[in-house]
Amino acid sequence: MTILGIDPGTRNCGYSILRKEKNRLVLVEAGLIKIKEKILQHQIMELVEGLDVLFKHHEIDEVAIEDIFYAYNPQTVLKLAQFRGALSLKILQVKGNFSEYTPLQVKKAVTGNGKAAKEQVAFMVKKILGIKQEIKPLDITDAIAIAITHAQRIKVD
Amino acid sequence: MTILGIDPGTRNCGYSILRKEKNRLVLVEAGLIKIKEKILQHQIMELVEGLDVLFKHHEIDEVAIEDIFYAYNPQTVLKLAQFRGALSLKILQVKGNFSEYTPLQVKKAVTGNGKAAKEQVAFMVKKILGIKQEIKPLDITDAIAIAITHAQRIKVD
Repeated sequence: MTILGIDPGTRNCGYSILRKEKNRLVLVEAGLIKIKEKILQHQIMELVEGLDVLFKHHEIDEVAIEDIFYAYNPQTVLKLAQFRGALSLKILQVKGNFSEYTPLQVKKAVTGNGKAAKEQVAFMVKKILGIKQEIKPLDITDAIAIAITHAQRIKVD
Repeated sequence: MTILGIDPGTRNCGYSILRKEKNRLVLVEAGLIKIKEKILQHQIMELVEGLDVLFKHHEIDEVAIEDIFYAYNPQTVLKLAQFRGALSLKILQVKGNFSEYTPLQVKKAVTGNGKAAKEQVAFMVKKILGIKQEIKPLDITDAIAIAITHAQRIKVD
């Protein structure tokens, strides 16, 4: 069972590809889809093309994406929500459905504390996967944490 | 030259199909894509499938969509912006680009007053197109106004 975890952002979109085996989780790949374009419609295409590359290079079974919440800056919310809408459509076109987790659910699933700091999430992600080296930036660990959250909720025979 | 005008909403998405001829504008069709589904990912698909029907039934040359702005209710903004992001991706997949107009630009183009009431926009839309009967609800006249705004900015030989 291979899970794609997505953490949408306005400048970078974190992603992770996690394989759930019977007794362990294996991180296949994780990284950022970087947004370099300046115009919103070009940024949407850049983001979706980045996602498309992941679907083409990996046999992805399920997708989990972070729920967005109301941030303080209205322009950020408008942009982030439009990006998430475009990503959602692309996932629906390819896979037919996806799972959604709030930041609180992800933090709770990974650290046991829904209010954990990003650094604590990163620490636990490395511990769960048995990874020693640093994973940076934290957008990437967030995307891995989303995939772990989903992995914990599904059963693999 | 056939223009598709889109006014995204959280419950209905207004659309209009307007043909720009050398000396006149002809309204081909206008209506609402109604959102009946309850879950966001189903709503996104419903909306995009409605848009797809328009692309399949009409030879659309250009698309104009209303820019969304920061509304007061955060949940509305999050939903509306995600819908707009999904619609944007679909338009980009089919047509490669689209034009965007703010509500102020649309009102100004149609009535001469960027702060005009919806009723005044509706009155001028009917006047410009030479339509006598009522067009209801106002989401539809807004979608027609967007297409008129775009039609005024382009030249047809």
